[in-house]
Amino acid sequence: MTTYRCDHLFGASGWVSPGELVVEDGRSAVERVRGYALPGMPNLHSHAFQRAIAGLTEYAGPGGDDFWSWRDAMYRFALRVEPDELESLACQLYVEMLEAGYTAVCEFHYLHHAPDGSPYDNPVEMSERLVAAARRAGIRLTLLPALYASGGFDGAPLGAAQRRFRSDAAWVMRAVERLRRAHPEVRVGVAPHSLRAAPPAELAACVTALEGLDSAAPIHIHVAEQTREVDACLTARGARPVEWLLASAPVDERWCLVHATHVTSRELADVARAGAVIGFCPTTEANLGDGLGPAGRSGAAGVRFGVGSDSQISVSVREELRWLEYTARLERRARNVLAPAGAASTGAYLYSTALAGGLQALAQPGGRDLVVLDPEHPVLAERPLERVLDAHLFSNHGSAVRDVMVDGEWVVKDGRHREREAIRACHRRALARLAE
Amino acid sequence: MTTYRCDHLFGASGWVSPGELVVEDGRSAVERVRGYALPGMPNLHSHAFQRAIAGLTEYAGPGGDDFWSWRDAMYRFALRVEPDELESLACQLYVEMLEAGYTAVCEFHYLHHAPDGSPYDNPVEMSERLVAAARRAGIRLTLLPALYASGGFDGAPLGAAQRRFRSDAAWVMRAVERLRRAHPEVRVGVAPHSLRAAPPAELAACVTALEGLDSAAPIHIHVAEQTREVDACLTARGARPVEWLLASAPVDERWCLVHATHVTSRELADVARAGAVIGFCPTTEANLGDGLGPAGRSGAAGVRFGVGSDSQISVSVREELRWLEYTARLERRARNVLAPAGAASTGAYLYSTALAGGLQALAQPGGRDLVVLDPEHPVLAERPLERVLDAHLFSNHGSAVRDVMVDGEWVVKDGRHREREAIRACHRRALARLAE
Repeated sequence: MTTYRCDHLFGASGWVSPGELVVEDGRSAVERVRGYALPGMPNLHSHAFQRAIAGLTEYAGPGGDDFWSWRDAMYRFALRVEPDELESLACQLYVEMLEAGYTAVCEFHYLHHAPDGSPYDNPVEMSERLVAAARRAGIRLTLLPALYASGGFDGAPLGAAQRRFRSDAAWVMRAVERLRRAHPEVRVGVAPHSLRAAPPAELAACVTALEGLDSAAPIHIHVAEQTREVDACLTARGARPVEWLLASAPVDERWCLVHATHVTSRELADVARAGAVIGFCPTTEANLGDGLGPAGRSGAAGVRFGVGSDSQISVSVREELRWLEYTARLERRARNVLAPAGAASTGAYLYSTALAGGLQALAQPGGRDLVVLDPEHPVLAERPLERVLDAHLFSNHGSAVRDVMVDGEWVVKDGRHREREAIRACHRRALARLAE
Repeated sequence: MTTYRCDHLFGASGWVSPGELVVEDGRSAVERVRGYALPGMPNLHSHAFQRAIAGLTEYAGPGGDDFWSWRDAMYRFALRVEPDELESLACQLYVEMLEAGYTAVCEFHYLHHAPDGSPYDNPVEMSERLVAAARRAGIRLTLLPALYASGGFDGAPLGAAQRRFRSDAAWVMRAVERLRRAHPEVRVGVAPHSLRAAPPAELAACVTALEGLDSAAPIHIHVAEQTREVDACLTARGARPVEWLLASAPVDERWCLVHATHVTSRELADVARAGAVIGFCPTTEANLGDGLGPAGRSGAAGVRFGVGSDSQISVSVREELRWLEYTARLERRARNVLAPAGAASTGAYLYSTALAGGLQALAQPGGRDLVVLDPEHPVLAERPLERVLDAHLFSNHGSAVRDVMVDGEWVVKDGRHREREAIRACHRRALARLAE
């Protein structure tokens, strides 16, 4: 085991100075960690391949622009990505995540098949590439093969642009079994893509089969991201998406409801009671114009939450958490609205809540990763300990993330990933091929 | 003169490759600039001393928290800052601005007197410190001594916590004349603090006197930031703040209306007609919970705007512009809402609009500063030229700002200010003294 003796360590009961973290790694060592050490943040929602289009869709066509026109552009791009490119894109993305202080990522993975829609020789080829990228970058991975069976609430068949995503419960469960066998270090669960894409019978079959295999495996679903989706669900099923899901599926601590932007306060309270996590993706939800979400009501509802980088338009723990709070402030016309009244630090509240929610959503134990902040950085220098997380998250004068350790390995030192240059070069070659 | 021969230069008509910038600097040289060169962005609203409390007010007291409780905390801090500390804080701040791609800053300066409220031996001592900080950092400065005469719409006297700000039109004009004489390189104007703090007769006297001195000098005012201010103005004057201002003062191209968060569409159209600039401060307005502003309506109204870092909670051209657009997207539930329909790039629209608005607000000519983006950075590599500004502003995977030139001097190279370390050390000592 290695004992990391940290000058300051943030934990469930706040800062401990000094604080110790013990990692069972077959060694026998003591290491001093200078600065402010945080548990690594899990990123609970990622579509790795979308990193490649960050910054390419920031204009409106003649018909205007919204989530659905963005989705068309994203589909067109998704049809071009081959396994080698996916691996290179994901590896660069995971380096960026680590440098930003994410030490674990949950891939909500639906790009299953070859560009023409036929299966790869290895049916989980694309999943394997995500695993390889995570291993090289040194990030912890939860991998959720997506169930993507229909094109609408009416059970319509998938469109041509969705041919790479096609899967049913049986296909997903074969993928889960294969990935679990091949990669015991990866946490595997399932992702019914959405109520549009997961017909009730397929959803039930998938959830039941997963439970038989691993009763604690994670289940994530996109839900209530768009008002059009809410309207379609009301029409087709007589209930709002979250309302329908809670009534029709065994939603509990294994579940992560991604977005849940358009929810009533009653739905929010019911999610809290079920013990599920809401996966907020503030920068993506803003970029896609999803609408103002329920974060400002989350405290009163007692709902668990974490954050995800989703479309990868931004890879920043700090921006996600800060703007989760900020959008609620703008809507409420007040300050410090997410934390309970009298909380000593909004930053500490946001960090510890998103940490717990993220670990639950990834079904990963914590306590083996560290993100160390530079106490000399102008964001943190001369700040009292109880303000360090506020300054880290809110004071945007550069990032104070200095070193990052995952499972006993320092993968980031002095703000740079150990393979930054080589992985950047791979990524660039992949982008050049994709642009051909 | 020096001719900067840029691989790519962004100008009024978009990108030119290669593009040339000629700076009259008494030299005779040609310099090649590799990468993507942008005109430097002006920061149209800054209270430098507030840099010191970034991250220190992110918690709610037992009575909750809003703009007004934040203001109390800020006042308490303002009473502690001495001239030496102001200079050190401002210098660090200006380094951060330059590294973020701001090449000019407008100081809305009201911290005039000694902590006990008495004048300094040199009445513009604190202004002199801002000038010194700007000179050392190498940032272009517009300096606006503030008129701060009353504590409310009823003409109430200032509170004890506001004693350092006290000024009337005569004091402000003496400060303007003195600063103009001493520092011809600094653009000097005035800042009636707000309608609360600038009684009508003082406001009129100040504006008239300034006009006599310099008919193009800038005039900035905080207006309609808070609903409480709108209500008080309606009660006291029978009109909304922006409505009253437009009817009662000679608002034109010299004016910058800072915030203008709570405006009707009619007020917005009238501001556009007057040719004034609105000074949006998205990160501060979010941090302070001011409310959702009119950015989404700015295009239809044809209003000019720029951005400012205001409270310094964030010093990032990219975050200000991105979230100006994002908050409008969240409110509208659509994408790419600020740029006119069919605009080729939201990033280019935001950048060029905020550049023009910023230069107008600072009453500074453009064309002597450059911000150069690294074409190898993962945010930009393999991106087509027409997407470079979209990627720069929206794709948040680190900053691609590599080099910054102000008036023929390269003050930032490879992302680092030439005096970064020495200025950081001064800043840190100032913070330590302030914490005593």
